Amino acid sequence: MKLDDLPTPCLVLDRRRLARNLERMASAVAMLGVALRPHMKTAKSADVARLALPDGGGVTVSTVAEAEYFLAHGFGDIILGAAITPQKLDQVARLNAAGGQIKVVTDDTDMAAAIARHPGRVDALIELDCGEGRSGIGADDAALEAIANQLGDRLAGVFAHAGHSYAARDRAALTAIAMRERHDAAGAARRLRDAGHDCPIVSIGSSPTALIPGDAGGITEIRPGVYMFGDLFQAEIGTHGREDIAVTVLASVIGRRPAERRLLVDAGSLALSRDRSTETTAHDCGFGLVLDAGGEPSLGESRVVRVWQEHGLVQLAHGSVEGFAIGGRLRIAPNHTCLTSAAHDRYYVVDGGDEVVAVWPRINGW
Amino acid sequence: MKLDDLPTPCLVLDRRRLARNLERMASAVAMLGVALRPHMKTAKSADVARLALPDGGGVTVSTVAEAEYFLAHGFGDIILGAAITPQKLDQVARLNAAGGQIKVVTDDTDMAAAIARHPGRVDALIELDCGEGRSGIGADDAALEAIANQLGDRLAGVFAHAGHSYAARDRAALTAIAMRERHDAAGAARRLRDAGHDCPIVSIGSSPTALIPGDAGGITEIRPGVYMFGDLFQAEIGTHGREDIAVTVLASVIGRRPAERRLLVDAGSLALSRDRSTETTAHDCGFGLVLDAGGEPSLGESRVVRVWQEHGLVQLAHGSVEGFAIGGRLRIAPNHTCLTSAAHDRYYVVDGGDEVVAVWPRINGW
Repeated sequence: MKLDDLPTPCLVLDRRRLARNLERMASAVAMLGVALRPHMKTAKSADVARLALPDGGGVTVSTVAEAEYFLAHGFGDIILGAAITPQKLDQVARLNAAGGQIKVVTDDTDMAAAIARHPGRVDALIELDCGEGRSGIGADDAALEAIANQLGDRLAGVFAHAGHSYAARDRAALTAIAMRERHDAAGAARRLRDAGHDCPIVSIGSSPTALIPGDAGGITEIRPGVYMFGDLFQAEIGTHGREDIAVTVLASVIGRRPAERRLLVDAGSLALSRDRSTETTAHDCGFGLVLDAGGEPSLGESRVVRVWQEHGLVQLAHGSVEGFAIGGRLRIAPNHTCLTSAAHDRYYVVDGGDEVVAVWPRINGW
Repeated sequence: MKLDDLPTPCLVLDRRRLARNLERMASAVAMLGVALRPHMKTAKSADVARLALPDGGGVTVSTVAEAEYFLAHGFGDIILGAAITPQKLDQVARLNAAGGQIKVVTDDTDMAAAIARHPGRVDALIELDCGEGRSGIGADDAALEAIANQLGDRLAGVFAHAGHSYAARDRAALTAIAMRERHDAAGAARRLRDAGHDCPIVSIGSSPTALIPGDAGGITEIRPGVYMFGDLFQAEIGTHGREDIAVTVLASVIGRRPAERRLLVDAGSLALSRDRSTETTAHDCGFGLVLDAGGEPSLGESRVVRVWQEHGLVQLAHGSVEGFAIGGRLRIAPNHTCLTSAAHDRYYVVDGGDEVVAVWPRINGW
């Protein structure tokens, strides 16, 4: 099967680029001397997890559905990284009874009590806020020990995520965020140990901060996710180059507007997502950067400038619409690969060329 | 099963509101004296189609996957409303050979020739641009007859969509757009008939324009879609009221930030979409308006002010976070119901209360 045989829109995964991205992150994390626990919320694929962890290991997930899926595919050591609710404990406990070692996260004393009371086995990490202001408690917060006391022997460790690293626009700012993430997590672990608790896991991570070298002192693992595929936003903030983006949307031309040098394609807000995260960067890529059918940047800064549910409007950066027939193929690099990928139920895998070498399913939904 | 028993996030469909919305549109279209061919790209559900068309009838779809699904569920008279490509003709022809009467749309002379040449039976409508500037040719364009000549006996009619009606902010502007949509479609049909072509279908429609009364002179059918469920954006532009929004996302509280009167919920950019269409209206609802667990507006203008993949940050408009436990339930009305619904694979159906009376699947993807 060739890319030309595929129905559009669909998701194309370049396995060579994926392999390069995986290797780069594995090296960076090895240099830090800690374990890599990749976040599978981006790829949502056991095939990708096997490449990310060739020798096995723990994974991070964002939904109970992902936890169930990765356990079923041999990845039992799981952190479910979005804060848990009492209602979700039953299913996590069932999966643990079936062989999983799924750990949940919480920043709430009442929730910690519910975890400790639950008749099934569920261990938990205490979520820390290391500056993002989304979820978690401060590393110095008095609640740290209160939550640990509630969890008792179900305390598995501490968990931080410097999601605000995405807002850093230079190396110095990013390095400061990475150091704070490590420092806060290690400090909270020390506090807990000083108070007599076990704190085996000291878990941090985002793709930008994971790549910052230096002293990892006190942390035990790192949880990047988006690094596997990359996207235009990550390229803009310097996590990788545009040539490292491994996932693109294959689309067909469905209309031509010669006077405006515009094309309509069959990838709109559902196939691409409405994510506009490059809007705040040096190169606003609209709803995606348009590549040729081979995935190469021969169309320059041609972008998807507007989307409707199933239509995307492409503004050509140069040239005319003459070379584009109805049914002609383009590839679109996404602003935010997690959101774009989530609209699709599978990857059509290529090794750089146009031969489809595999089809890998995704675990979407909740 | 009660709403409280459902895993979150998930989609709740209030069948009473749906029925009211369906009845209102059916009456408006009956007053115009034309057929209703509902666009199923919003609901993507045969269960909803059966309620929208209690006596049967034609439907509109936006993807080949929807065409296949609705044919399999007894709706064979289909217009596939996103412009077709040569590659997609094979599957449409196969579905037509299996009993479908799927009609495609095109605005391209070469594509019309490909349709005419195709060995399978595929009829087509000529797409008109009545002011939106997305796809289609002008009703006066010389290409109209050229495309009709290419199609020959495969010409099924003309097809217009006044999508720019969404940008109208008063009744006069909306009425003008609705009249132009009707006028252009009827005029193009007249031109084709004067030139000796059959033009049985004169198809127009968007939810806002379909509700405008007046002379439908010359059109044969209307294709609204979003009216079934409604959303915050449609409420802002006056298509219906907020109390008519039939689809909401059920979410659980996963975090509390008392000082800022903010809650974290487990519905983020995947469960809600990143659509921000109310941004340009009088009431910017962020990423969604927060309702109580019963779907009532007791939380005022509380909104989802920020989203991450699986986290939503709720700013309470009044009151404190005290009444909200971890695991407590909220409902979120969407900015744009088509995009929010597309993230979910099923509807949990209620009749106004908290009893789940049915579970209806959706046909997502392509």
